[in-house]
Amino acid sequence: MPAKTEKKLADLFHDGLRDIYYAERKLLKALPKMARGAESPDLKAAFEKHRDETEGHVDRLQQVFEIFGKRAQGKNCPAIDGIVEEGEEILDEFKGSRALDAGLIAAAQAAEHYEITRYGTLKRWARELGMDDAARLLDQTLGEEAKTDEALSRLAETAANQKAA
Amino acid sequence: MPAKTEKKLADLFHDGLRDIYYAERKLLKALPKMARGAESPDLKAAFEKHRDETEGHVDRLQQVFEIFGKRAQGKNCPAIDGIVEEGEEILDEFKGSRALDAGLIAAAQAAEHYEITRYGTLKRWARELGMDDAARLLDQTLGEEAKTDEALSRLAETAANQKAA
Repeated sequence: MPAKTEKKLADLFHDGLRDIYYAERKLLKALPKMARGAESPDLKAAFEKHRDETEGHVDRLQQVFEIFGKRAQGKNCPAIDGIVEEGEEILDEFKGSRALDAGLIAAAQAAEHYEITRYGTLKRWARELGMDDAARLLDQTLGEEAKTDEALSRLAETAANQKAA
Repeated sequence: MPAKTEKKLADLFHDGLRDIYYAERKLLKALPKMARGAESPDLKAAFEKHRDETEGHVDRLQQVFEIFGKRAQGKNCPAIDGIVEEGEEILDEFKGSRALDAGLIAAAQAAEHYEITRYGTLKRWARELGMDDAARLLDQTLGEEAKTDEALSRLAETAANQKAA
């Protein structure tokens, strides 16, 4: 591979890493608000559990920055800002409504999918750049994000079935 | 289900529908730019094909608005604005670089995942609200978005393997 290509893929990787580092730290602040706002104890617990996992994700990203030889540093990410903003609107507009939890689940799943796509891409690039240890760390987080997304889908289905019963 | 809950879930559905309607129309404008920017003929073709599919998605959303009894109307969606903005930055910053396509694929997959999560949620809510025809239309689009995401992953892997060979 010519040096120029390698450098540029490394630039993409660095930007992507900074983007998701910012996103994870933003979610670390947003998740406790969502846990406080949620009506159902199961959803509260799911948000609290995911907040704790998110601390681990930030840790892993710091390890990836180290492997990559760069200082851990975020980069403003308008996509996650928009997703969190939409979640805050739901907290505000649906407060006291029985549909609040459905809205919070939707907002959280949008955040999970943003992370799933970003971690999937970063894992691919880490492998292409020959950083297999970094790829493994990114893959661990990717697995946890996918599980959280599935757990949220199950909570949404259960809540809907209970209401219908 | 008490009337209040039904109304509120319908509100969530309406907001979500307006959000994705805005997002699809935004992507309808962004995809031709990405097709023009892409280096590889396969990626160009993938973006062009998805632009055509996106026209069909807008059509289906108009049908869902009709089933729901509301005028088709978008609602500003900061999340997709952020995703498209990040894609435009890549077009700009990686022009002429062999990593451009990798960056464009990542940007497009972020958009796909945003749509996948929103269509998944809307399909669930349509069913809960008893709109099975709407749920079917939303599910058709969901399937196409998921296939596009997979096709983009394959293009990324193929490109990486060709470069490594």
